[in-house]
Amino acid sequence: MSQELESLFRKMFRLGVDTFMVSDLHVIRWLTGFSGSNARVLLNRHHSALFTDFRYGEQVKHEVDSMESVIIQNSFVDTFVDGGYLQGKKLGIQAEQVTVYDAGQLGEKLKGVDIVPVHGFFDEFRELKNELEIAWMKQAAAISEKVFEEILPLISTEATEAEIAAEISYRHKRYGAEKDSFDPIVASGIRSALPHAKPAKKTFSPGNLIVIDMGCVCNGYASDQTRTVAFGRIPDEARKIYEITREAQQLGIEAARPGMPAKELDALVRSYIDKSGYGEFFGHGLGHGVGVEVHEKPRLGKTSEDYLLSGSVFTIEPGIYLPEKFGVRIEDTVVMGKSGVAPFQRFTKELIEL
Amino acid sequence: MSQELESLFRKMFRLGVDTFMVSDLHVIRWLTGFSGSNARVLLNRHHSALFTDFRYGEQVKHEVDSMESVIIQNSFVDTFVDGGYLQGKKLGIQAEQVTVYDAGQLGEKLKGVDIVPVHGFFDEFRELKNELEIAWMKQAAAISEKVFEEILPLISTEATEAEIAAEISYRHKRYGAEKDSFDPIVASGIRSALPHAKPAKKTFSPGNLIVIDMGCVCNGYASDQTRTVAFGRIPDEARKIYEITREAQQLGIEAARPGMPAKELDALVRSYIDKSGYGEFFGHGLGHGVGVEVHEKPRLGKTSEDYLLSGSVFTIEPGIYLPEKFGVRIEDTVVMGKSGVAPFQRFTKELIEL
Repeated sequence: MSQELESLFRKMFRLGVDTFMVSDLHVIRWLTGFSGSNARVLLNRHHSALFTDFRYGEQVKHEVDSMESVIIQNSFVDTFVDGGYLQGKKLGIQAEQVTVYDAGQLGEKLKGVDIVPVHGFFDEFRELKNELEIAWMKQAAAISEKVFEEILPLISTEATEAEIAAEISYRHKRYGAEKDSFDPIVASGIRSALPHAKPAKKTFSPGNLIVIDMGCVCNGYASDQTRTVAFGRIPDEARKIYEITREAQQLGIEAARPGMPAKELDALVRSYIDKSGYGEFFGHGLGHGVGVEVHEKPRLGKTSEDYLLSGSVFTIEPGIYLPEKFGVRIEDTVVMGKSGVAPFQRFTKELIEL
Repeated sequence: MSQELESLFRKMFRLGVDTFMVSDLHVIRWLTGFSGSNARVLLNRHHSALFTDFRYGEQVKHEVDSMESVIIQNSFVDTFVDGGYLQGKKLGIQAEQVTVYDAGQLGEKLKGVDIVPVHGFFDEFRELKNELEIAWMKQAAAISEKVFEEILPLISTEATEAEIAAEISYRHKRYGAEKDSFDPIVASGIRSALPHAKPAKKTFSPGNLIVIDMGCVCNGYASDQTRTVAFGRIPDEARKIYEITREAQQLGIEAARPGMPAKELDALVRSYIDKSGYGEFFGHGLGHGVGVEVHEKPRLGKTSEDYLLSGSVFTIEPGIYLPEKFGVRIEDTVVMGKSGVAPFQRFTKELIEL
């Protein structure tokens, strides 16, 4: 992390910021390893420190060794002031994290300190993953794939979407994940046409497609995958959109190149689905970055200005959703290498008929 | 909800605000029933509306009937402007929710509109629960109690804290909860002295106390409960602090009266633990309000300025934590009635020895 820290300090210097306050717990985890639910970090070239409350007094000792840790007495800002932790006259804050209220409180208590909101300060650093981060993400992906394989036999006319979702969450933890990276989606029948359906207390019916979108967190890093399976014999049009989605997703994997604009890959896959006649039913972006958050940079969509950089990790997940009928989505998380991407998931993308 | 809406409009009028933008998803759930993960509400006496994105097009139809719902095209603020949804010259925003970045974006795009950050706008309304809300909270509490009873026999020298925590989450969902209201705490041995320990991959040892703090969400409303149990024969001092904590908690339940300052109840229970000689080991507040959030108003602590109002729901949860030895916490969620409180939990608070 020392190299990353040096880059952060250089960016602070360019912005004229003496100290930067980190409020985002995902960034704090990424930066220090601390996994508690209440913390701030003050980054300063001469003296950086992590602040948390008494509940995490033990935990912080085990988790944080890259900087001093301080247990706050009253509030963060009182501790900054009383302990003399704020150095310099310009304090950078995360504009997309600090609320208007908290910024007001800081301004009031830190008289004479200039508060500088910076948007996306850490994005460029988080986007490029190192080997350890990639290993953790692969571990999370492997757990989720194992769980996916195990829950398929549990799908029946007796089981509900909500029960299968509960099985997924349970097994993620059983196999060592910290938690789900998001609430699992198990959506069957006409509900498979809702890209973000909540699992319902509804049993499965033969002839349905089932979209299963799931992921977990290991060592703070997320996984994300989607497979769509058939329960019994499905209509021809369902099979047709399955094949188009599968081919489109495969095209996305094969066409991705380092340095490519993210919207170019999105456009390529989108035009394939367009030509097949289902363009209007692919209503979301092609994918998103994954890391300590399950949605981070880069964004893959029509209006994205991001690039697909070597070392970045993102999803490729086209979908076709026919309202009131059925939907398909197929998603892998991939890492961009020197010449193209490698998916973390190995599970087949051929149509599975349960 | 129409009576609550009328009160909200009156408060807006007092603040000179024409339209109020709600960003907090918990408030949006409380106000409209909408449970999606991306939404805003514009409250205006003449025309209120809920805004969400295309993913929730179907869901919003099922969940929201108290106001118009609008699917945004690009961003929330573009839709507000293009659709002419912003009425008046003063827009109230939730100061503790809207980030500095978003407030800046609003200011840029809404030329000529005065943006008024208001802190805690909804707190006083959310604090008083109606009968339906209390019924939902009781339902959540009942599910968690059933789960607690079921997981006790699973505690053994073979099982780990993390496994028991996974069982709790799993069974919450199996019995119809939407999710945990927070990550369950299962902390044994010296880890029971950490008030917010994360469940470890660590098996249980005879002679240990085990703190189990858990809750779930039903219809958007949270439950929260803690019991501490003994695994095998525990040391005399552990038994002693158990009894003191139990008596202190009972005192809290018996002494609570409507209209009482929250810090008075905290002080009463605290002085009981003080007199027993363990005051310095009760390092947190006595409790907190529960509702659509598991921590909301009122706050019960030394410096709280809240009152315990009839119709409010909050926890009473003293604890004694002896570092590197063991800890005890006992917690019920109670509703304040006309003359005192009634706990939602029925599970015994006598020491259970597994």
